[in-house]
Amino acid sequence: MTSSSLGNNKVMQVGMVVENIDEAVQAWSRLLGVEPPSIAITDTFDISNAHYQDKPTPAQAKLAFFDLGQITLELIQPLGEPSTWNDQLTAQGSSLHHIAFEIKGMQEHIHELAKHGLGLVQQGEYQGGRYAYLDGQKKFGTVIELLEND
Amino acid sequence: MTSSSLGNNKVMQVGMVVENIDEAVQAWSRLLGVEPPSIAITDTFDISNAHYQDKPTPAQAKLAFFDLGQITLELIQPLGEPSTWNDQLTAQGSSLHHIAFEIKGMQEHIHELAKHGLGLVQQGEYQGGRYAYLDGQKKFGTVIELLEND
Repeated sequence: MTSSSLGNNKVMQVGMVVENIDEAVQAWSRLLGVEPPSIAITDTFDISNAHYQDKPTPAQAKLAFFDLGQITLELIQPLGEPSTWNDQLTAQGSSLHHIAFEIKGMQEHIHELAKHGLGLVQQGEYQGGRYAYLDGQKKFGTVIELLEND
Repeated sequence: MTSSSLGNNKVMQVGMVVENIDEAVQAWSRLLGVEPPSIAITDTFDISNAHYQDKPTPAQAKLAFFDLGQITLELIQPLGEPSTWNDQLTAQGSSLHHIAFEIKGMQEHIHELAKHGLGLVQQGEYQGGRYAYLDGQKKFGTVIELLEND
């Protein structure tokens, strides 16, 4: 069989969009019996250089992460639009959004994965890394996120 | 902080409903560079004793599992109705459906988690274990599955 087009097959993260991240963080904290994590806001455009459907977007999001050892749960409350987060929250309400794989070499992977029918939906930068969301819903059943940490 | 109401905080599985499991299995196999797993069909009612919204249901599903080491990806193509799988596929098309935690003591957990606002949506048996889906979408952003293996 051919080797993985991702470089590795370890799911790092499962992400979900939520209507109210404060309430969702409290609910998960109580369920898991852990302290509530802090809630961060994604960088503004000057740092994020966020692009949605190939165009710059001012959209941001509030984020919180629960480290469950094997994987991280990411809670996402969209701020502004357009973004893949806001699209899904508007269409479906609070719901699972993506599974994320860590990769090395973002542009090469985006190019390679296009051959699998995975089109680029949104990408951006954060302090120490970058992300891309690929539209795998029809063919793979989920948005696939690529995460590259420097 | 209080202890986990789940007993542990390890996500065992991420599940997604798909329109065509044969095509989805091929797509994931190529992406991950692994042999396609076999596709199983859930047990008929005489074994599954499947209940949806507290009533017996003849619904089944085709299932395939990709073992990614940390977690398992579960692909689900609904067969018949009513089921939570069929509801979601009808409403949203192919999409992420649940994250699953392994627990011990199904009825105690269903009772305990009701206190967290997690209502029982569907439950059933399989050879060697049982499952329950809890409706966490509004409050937690996802359906939460409990898996108990004997």
